[in-house]
Amino acid sequence: MKNGNFVSFDRVEWKDGFWQDRYDLNRKVSVKNVAKRFEETNRFGAMRFDYLKTGKKIHFFYDSDVAKWIEAVAYLLQKDRDGYPEEEAIIDEMVDCMAAAQRPDGYLNSYHQQIAPQEIFQIRNHHELYCLGHLIEAAVAYDRATGKRKLLDILERYCELVNKLFFVENSVPFETPGHEEIELALYKLYRYTGKETYRAMAEGFLTRRGRSEKDCAIYTDDRGNENLYGTQDDTTIESLTDANGHSVRALYLYSGIADMALENGNAKLKAALDRVFTDIVNRKMYITGGVGSTHTTESFTVPYDLPNMTAYAESCCAIAMILFATRMRRLECHGRYGNLIERVLYNSLLSSTSLDGKAFFYVNPLEIALEERDREVAVPPRRKEWMPITTRVEVFSCSCCPPNINRMFASLADVICFDGEDHAYVEQWIPSKVASAHGTLELEGEFATKGIMTVRSSDYKAKTLAVRIPEWCRKLTVRSDSTEVTDYERRDGYAYFAVDSAFELTFDFHIAPVFVAANPKVRADAGRVALTYGPVVYCLEGVDNGPRLNQVSVSIDTKNAVCTPDFHGLLSIETDGFRDAEQEELYFDASLADKLPCRLKFIPYFAFANRGESDMLVWVRKH
Amino acid sequence: MKNGNFVSFDRVEWKDGFWQDRYDLNRKVSVKNVAKRFEETNRFGAMRFDYLKTGKKIHFFYDSDVAKWIEAVAYLLQKDRDGYPEEEAIIDEMVDCMAAAQRPDGYLNSYHQQIAPQEIFQIRNHHELYCLGHLIEAAVAYDRATGKRKLLDILERYCELVNKLFFVENSVPFETPGHEEIELALYKLYRYTGKETYRAMAEGFLTRRGRSEKDCAIYTDDRGNENLYGTQDDTTIESLTDANGHSVRALYLYSGIADMALENGNAKLKAALDRVFTDIVNRKMYITGGVGSTHTTESFTVPYDLPNMTAYAESCCAIAMILFATRMRRLECHGRYGNLIERVLYNSLLSSTSLDGKAFFYVNPLEIALEERDREVAVPPRRKEWMPITTRVEVFSCSCCPPNINRMFASLADVICFDGEDHAYVEQWIPSKVASAHGTLELEGEFATKGIMTVRSSDYKAKTLAVRIPEWCRKLTVRSDSTEVTDYERRDGYAYFAVDSAFELTFDFHIAPVFVAANPKVRADAGRVALTYGPVVYCLEGVDNGPRLNQVSVSIDTKNAVCTPDFHGLLSIETDGFRDAEQEELYFDASLADKLPCRLKFIPYFAFANRGESDMLVWVRKH
Repeated sequence: MKNGNFVSFDRVEWKDGFWQDRYDLNRKVSVKNVAKRFEETNRFGAMRFDYLKTGKKIHFFYDSDVAKWIEAVAYLLQKDRDGYPEEEAIIDEMVDCMAAAQRPDGYLNSYHQQIAPQEIFQIRNHHELYCLGHLIEAAVAYDRATGKRKLLDILERYCELVNKLFFVENSVPFETPGHEEIELALYKLYRYTGKETYRAMAEGFLTRRGRSEKDCAIYTDDRGNENLYGTQDDTTIESLTDANGHSVRALYLYSGIADMALENGNAKLKAALDRVFTDIVNRKMYITGGVGSTHTTESFTVPYDLPNMTAYAESCCAIAMILFATRMRRLECHGRYGNLIERVLYNSLLSSTSLDGKAFFYVNPLEIALEERDREVAVPPRRKEWMPITTRVEVFSCSCCPPNINRMFASLADVICFDGEDHAYVEQWIPSKVASAHGTLELEGEFATKGIMTVRSSDYKAKTLAVRIPEWCRKLTVRSDSTEVTDYERRDGYAYFAVDSAFELTFDFHIAPVFVAANPKVRADAGRVALTYGPVVYCLEGVDNGPRLNQVSVSIDTKNAVCTPDFHGLLSIETDGFRDAEQEELYFDASLADKLPCRLKFIPYFAFANRGESDMLVWVRKH
Repeated sequence: MKNGNFVSFDRVEWKDGFWQDRYDLNRKVSVKNVAKRFEETNRFGAMRFDYLKTGKKIHFFYDSDVAKWIEAVAYLLQKDRDGYPEEEAIIDEMVDCMAAAQRPDGYLNSYHQQIAPQEIFQIRNHHELYCLGHLIEAAVAYDRATGKRKLLDILERYCELVNKLFFVENSVPFETPGHEEIELALYKLYRYTGKETYRAMAEGFLTRRGRSEKDCAIYTDDRGNENLYGTQDDTTIESLTDANGHSVRALYLYSGIADMALENGNAKLKAALDRVFTDIVNRKMYITGGVGSTHTTESFTVPYDLPNMTAYAESCCAIAMILFATRMRRLECHGRYGNLIERVLYNSLLSSTSLDGKAFFYVNPLEIALEERDREVAVPPRRKEWMPITTRVEVFSCSCCPPNINRMFASLADVICFDGEDHAYVEQWIPSKVASAHGTLELEGEFATKGIMTVRSSDYKAKTLAVRIPEWCRKLTVRSDSTEVTDYERRDGYAYFAVDSAFELTFDFHIAPVFVAANPKVRADAGRVALTYGPVVYCLEGVDNGPRLNQVSVSIDTKNAVCTPDFHGLLSIETDGFRDAEQEELYFDASLADKLPCRLKFIPYFAFANRGESDMLVWVRKH
């Protein structure tokens, strides 16, 4: 790990502010509420292996849902060992049940053992290795937090079986998983246990991609997947040129490849990942950091295809983008990875969760037009076009996102600071106290409202401090003791400061409302602009601005913009806009069109859909 | 028929011009080419009842395809009795086969008799009455043109059976057809034969709508139709408030209701039709005159929902709009019906057919964005979203449109002139010589290029001539012998002139390029404009203007517009436009966006997709 690593969340203390509030909301509300829903929906029951007695529904991805929730609780326990006795008791009970249920050969899966043993390792898309991967991540986190290694032992036995079936014997009808996750999990297990087998297994699954005759031959599977792109079977990992297929699976795959590159230093892998990363952030990413442009197979599509109303932008993608970007940052010292993480944090990740912490979006659209929600009045229900839901819900039948959000927020402080070999890097401008390897850094200020942050230390051992300059920052003023600091170097998105063991630097990023345009190739955003304020993407809601938001246009001149706190910790922004005058006729001479001036109220995108069902629009017509 | 009627096409002679060319293209190319394709695809074979020997595919709507083609040929024969011996021979052969195949009880259907006799009158959506309706229309036309009444006899026997099963016994498991058509056909048969039974049957089918417990109870049928709106079972005909359901079926239904209102003078029916007509033209119609906003069940959707790329706007809808509008014109003396017909003629009807006359669109979209055609790269073929085809084809598996187009063009002159009780009305400005009941009218000029037309007569018996003033006409100059005529009355879309038995009036409609805006409620057209020139809607094509037409915006000031003949009989128009400057980044400060001035070449919409696969756009961003 020659490039260093992020400072682990357990070495970070939150300070008052926006993100601490979000962290607390997750641990106090979201994690507990997900547990209630998982109890109700038999996800916990599945892992108690009580199907014999209850006969309740189990789905083949339930193990992964529970695993992500266990991982979240483990992170919370690592910060506060005695803080979650109820959750810990649930976990211990489930672990005992898993131990009792595990087959003598090591196999463990609540769906296949209880419902469909005849299908064990028969169907590539049945998520067994995906479930195992998440259980591994949970087990590592739980052992690290509590010292209870029972779950880890269970999964190491399971891994032994997987190694035997997939690599020693190669006797399974497929060679790589339908849903990636096991790869990055095995690297995590390898790093935690030091056992080479896990590294070799991860590498095995990765290098088989695009090479497995078995997998390519069975690409028409029982789920109707007939497309090599859709299952990431189209190419080998060294030959990847662009992001493709199911977007969560793809990002988990890329994260696994990045782990492999971190371990073996293979420059070809890094080059392939560079191509993929660039393809995503330059061509396939919503302004919110969301990805996935079609709900059909939840996939990446072609470059610049970013429909707003039917955006997929799954919440799990927001998380997967962070998983990918943190690994890329370890491979390369560049600010673009922190920029991406910042974009995701303030927008597509945050929008996943309701302001009360209880409910979630699976899909995060960038437009809601209620007048067209039930457009297909004459179409039978099951043939209607797909539309994202307009209000967050507490649990989904496919509820992968809520526990993923739980674990992401529980370990969120992971992304704040990076320990380089020679000095620390401030990656995210989040108020906190970070026990970096080079000394303790204190970050204070109001980043997303005032754009001003202070970094200080009194025990810093390195001679340089690097901080990421946000991509949206067009003017930077740095002060030390009220004196402007100008002699610093800027390189690859970072500013490098010579510092003593005690220092205090204040950064003014000159935050302001700015209207952003999309690349002209983005058809959906042609002639439109999005309001941003620092890292925060804004939107209009019908509840503030009336319905039919496509009748509204906006002046990109922000001189009359008024920013008002406190909108759920951030600002609301009013600007000058126009509303098309009502017309009687369906078609009329365009020279007779009229626009009436109005004020428009923008709110941070992530906060949309918290005041009842409402129209919503990110990309507003430019006046 | 107190309001008079249109002058029948057989009393109209074409004069040189755009529409005569279209008429000739249909009779010389389209009708013959459809025959070839129908021979190849066993449509004619089906009607020869030769399944026993060939075993070739028959679909349950084949009879209607053939019927519409017979009807087209009949109209051609009526104008030129000896002009189509080959086609006449095909028809006579098929009629002989039908006579031989007809069941003793009168039943006749090539699909059900040969393939599925057990399903005769069992499945509401199996189009038996629809096929019968089209065969009736064909039989009436063929008898009128040739005096051969064999087909008519066959169908009168079939009608007797239908009357027995549906009305005397009411023994069929449904009471109204899944696809309307029989209603207007029975009125045609009633008017042709004078037999009251047919009028009563038509009225029976119509008045049962929305009242039939049988039909509402079985509304979940084998095709997945679970929606009363979709099958026009939601309401009775007197209670109709808006256009709904499958758009062709709906328009055929409304045409049948209009026939009923014409026969019985029921003001409630007229009021219901007014509501429906207004709903269509004020809220649910594309600027091209196309209707149907979703391909799913080919239906009307909610008001102002007019997506361009996935517009349905079936070619049969263009025809059905004319069927509906002509009947409405008979019910009410108002120019709006002629306005609608003019809009349909020059745009959604014409676009249905390739410039060489051989190929057809079923669906007529208002935008093609090739860069997104295969957007779902990772999605298995059968799960990809629906998109209209980009190039016309010679035959479809569901090939209802091509023969419908054949019969529409063959009888097109039907819409030119209307014989009122007291005088004639010029309805469509099409060069022709019309033997009106009030005298012979000669129409000359170049309507859609120069906007100037002359009407003259030397034997006019009435004292008034009425002419429709097109809705797009903002200034009208009328001259008689070079003297401006100003003492005329304008009322309900018509201008009324006092005339002698010999007169010549020249109309200058001051045609010019005009950019049109859509009602602000139309989300798809927000911030966009469409170029029109008189009745003709224009579009941009990639072949002229480069790809990615959403990067283009246009000035609505037409002072630099240059109109150039001869683009397939009309004009191409160049105007000032802009193209967004290319950008490297996906998102960037909107104040840095740049536009480069350019010239844009617009062509008439109907001519799109005749020069290879190309981007196309009607609604262009307004600069």
